[in-house]
Amino acid sequence: MQKFSIKSGKGKARTGTLNTAHGKIKTPFFMPVATKAAVKLLSNREILETNTDCMICNSFILSMKPGVEVISKHGGLHKFMNWKKSLFTDSGGFQVLSKKFCLNLSEEGVTFRNPFTGKSMLFTPEKSMEIQTSLGIDVAMCLDDVPVAGSTETRVKEAVERTTRWAQRCFDAHNNKKQMLFGICQGGINEKLRKQSAEEISAIGFDGIAVGGLAIGEPVKGMFKAIETSLKIIPEEKPRYLMGVGSVKEMVKAIALGVDCFDSRFPTRTARHGRAFTSERNINIDSAQYKNDLKPLDKDCKCFVCQSYSKAYIHHLFRTKEENAGKYLGYHNIYFVQNTLAECREAIADGTFTITKILKHA
Amino acid sequence: MQKFSIKSGKGKARTGTLNTAHGKIKTPFFMPVATKAAVKLLSNREILETNTDCMICNSFILSMKPGVEVISKHGGLHKFMNWKKSLFTDSGGFQVLSKKFCLNLSEEGVTFRNPFTGKSMLFTPEKSMEIQTSLGIDVAMCLDDVPVAGSTETRVKEAVERTTRWAQRCFDAHNNKKQMLFGICQGGINEKLRKQSAEEISAIGFDGIAVGGLAIGEPVKGMFKAIETSLKIIPEEKPRYLMGVGSVKEMVKAIALGVDCFDSRFPTRTARHGRAFTSERNINIDSAQYKNDLKPLDKDCKCFVCQSYSKAYIHHLFRTKEENAGKYLGYHNIYFVQNTLAECREAIADGTFTITKILKHA
Repeated sequence: MQKFSIKSGKGKARTGTLNTAHGKIKTPFFMPVATKAAVKLLSNREILETNTDCMICNSFILSMKPGVEVISKHGGLHKFMNWKKSLFTDSGGFQVLSKKFCLNLSEEGVTFRNPFTGKSMLFTPEKSMEIQTSLGIDVAMCLDDVPVAGSTETRVKEAVERTTRWAQRCFDAHNNKKQMLFGICQGGINEKLRKQSAEEISAIGFDGIAVGGLAIGEPVKGMFKAIETSLKIIPEEKPRYLMGVGSVKEMVKAIALGVDCFDSRFPTRTARHGRAFTSERNINIDSAQYKNDLKPLDKDCKCFVCQSYSKAYIHHLFRTKEENAGKYLGYHNIYFVQNTLAECREAIADGTFTITKILKHA
Repeated sequence: MQKFSIKSGKGKARTGTLNTAHGKIKTPFFMPVATKAAVKLLSNREILETNTDCMICNSFILSMKPGVEVISKHGGLHKFMNWKKSLFTDSGGFQVLSKKFCLNLSEEGVTFRNPFTGKSMLFTPEKSMEIQTSLGIDVAMCLDDVPVAGSTETRVKEAVERTTRWAQRCFDAHNNKKQMLFGICQGGINEKLRKQSAEEISAIGFDGIAVGGLAIGEPVKGMFKAIETSLKIIPEEKPRYLMGVGSVKEMVKAIALGVDCFDSRFPTRTARHGRAFTSERNINIDSAQYKNDLKPLDKDCKCFVCQSYSKAYIHHLFRTKEENAGKYLGYHNIYFVQNTLAECREAIADGTFTITKILKHA
C-alpha cells in the first residue's frame, strides 16, 4: 500500500491519506501531544471523541521513564497507553538539547544527564532509532540538532549540517519496515540555510519530511517565510509535517502553503490557562464577562463540552481552581482544531479552500 | 409516592429505595463529593459510568462562588452542572465553622468571612434553607453546629443543643415540597449526648436523619459506638445517612449497623495520593513493585480503567506527576465502592449479607 497519497489540491493546499500500520489518516491532520504517553487531563476515550486519528509521544522522555523495557513488555507503546490508532514519536532532539538535560553536544551525539537516575548518558541518532523501533510506533522522527531562536548564523549552519549527518545516520540505522521514518529540516529563519537543509534532508529518501525548529520564539513573519522556503524544496509527493504549530490561524495558513501534518501542545496548554478557541475569536474564560453567560463556549460546536456546559459553569470551575476547567477547555480546543482541519480537507477536496473561507471571523 | 421504602433486611442491615425528584436511588448508596459542583478530575459522564445515582455538593461554598443567582439562572444546580440524577447538598455547617471562615458563633448563626469578597456575613439556619431551596436540589441538609474532634463535654453539649434548635428552625423555614430535608445528629463520641441528639433530632419529623460529626479524627471504635447509639434511636422507617465515611471497610460495617447512605471525599482524595481500592487490599500505586506490573488495578473489576490500563501504566503516570493518574485511580475507586455497595444490596436482599462475605479479603 502507498504510504502517502494526495487526493486533491487547491493551490498549494492538498488533501490526501497517510497510511500507517494503525490505520489511515486523512491529511492535513493535527496530533495532540501525549509527551509521557498521556494527554494532560484527558483519557484516550476522550481524545478519540475529538476525532483525533493520531497522537505524538516523546520517545526520549519515555526512554528515561518508564523506560523502553516496560513498554516492550506491554507489546509496545500503543498497548501501554491503550491507543489503537496511529502514533508518532518525536526523537526528543528538542528536549535533549535543552539546558535541563544537555551536558555536551558533539558529532557523535548528545551527552545528557538523566534527571531520574542522575547518570550522564550518550544519546545518538542510532540510539534514538533503536528506542523508536522498540516502541513499535507508526512514524519515527530523526534526531535533529535544534538551535534556539535567535542563534548566530554560525550556530544555525552548524545545526543544519549536523542535522543532515545525523539524519543520514538515522536513515542508515532504521530498519523497521512497519514504521515510517521522517526527516527534519532545520535552518532557523535564515533563508539560505533553510534551503540548504530542505535540499539535504529531501535527498536522503525519507517517508516524510518535517519542518522543525520553528514556533520557538522567532517572529511569525520569519516563520512563514521559512515554511514557504522549505516547502518549495520538499518533494510534493512526500507528507510534510510542520512541528510545534498549533494555533488554528497559523495551521490554516500553513495548510494553504501545503503542510499536511501538525502537532502542538498549544490547544491543551492554553486550555489550562483558561483559553478556548471559538469560531469568532479565542476567549479567556477567566474574564468576569462570562460569570453569567449561559451559552456554550462556541455556539456551533458539537463537542461534548459545548453540548453539556455553559461558559458560566466553566468560568466557575476555572475561578475555583478545579482541574476540570482545563480538562473541558482542552477537550473543546482539540475538538475545535480537528473540526477546523476537517473543514479544510473538505474545502480542499471540493476546490473551495481559501484561508478566509475557513477563518471566517479571524 | 413514598419517599423511602425498605424492601428487605438482614439483621440490622437493610436495602430499599429513596425516591427523589430526580429518580430512585437503591439503598444503601454512596455519593461522590462534588463540593464546587464538580468531582475532581472526573466529568459527570465518567461519574455516571461508575453507577453513581447521586452526588453531594456544598451549598455554603456554592452560595459564595459562583453564587445562587447564576445557578438559578441556569434553572438550578442540576442544570448548572449538567447532572440529571439525584443531588444532595450539605449545608456547609462543617465548613462555615472552620477556622478558615468562622468569625463568631452565636445562637442566631455563624458570622463568617467570605474569602472571595472579604466581607463578613451572617449565615443562619434560615439562610441555609433559602440557599438550598434556590439550588433546586433533591435533599437538603440542616445547618448543624459541628464540634471538632476532642472537644470538651461542655462544648459537645452546647453543639448538640444548638444543633437541635437550629434543626427546628431549618424544619420551620423549609417549605419546598419537591425537596426532602434531613436532620443531622451530633454528640461526638459521648454516648449520653449522642443519645440526646438522636432523640431530639428524630422527634422533629425530618425526611431522613444523618449521623454527623464523625470521621473527623476520633478513634474508630468510638465512631462505631456512636453510630450504633444513634441508629438505635433514629426511627427505622427513616433513611439514615452517615456523613463523611468513605472507606470500603467502614461503609460495609456501617451498613451492617443499618446505615442507608454515605458520602465521602476519601475515594477521590486518596486516589490523588496514589491509592487504589482492590478486593484484596488497598494498594499504593507509587510503590516500585508496580513498575512492571502488567495486570489491572483489580483483577475482577469491570471499570473502564481496569479494562484499559495496567498498574505499570498508572504507576508511570503517577511517578511522572500526570494528573491522569489521580483521574484514573479516582474513577476506579468510585466504581469499586459502587460495585461493593451493589453487592451489599444484593446480599441483603437475598438474606446472605455478612461483613465477612463482602470483605472477603479484608
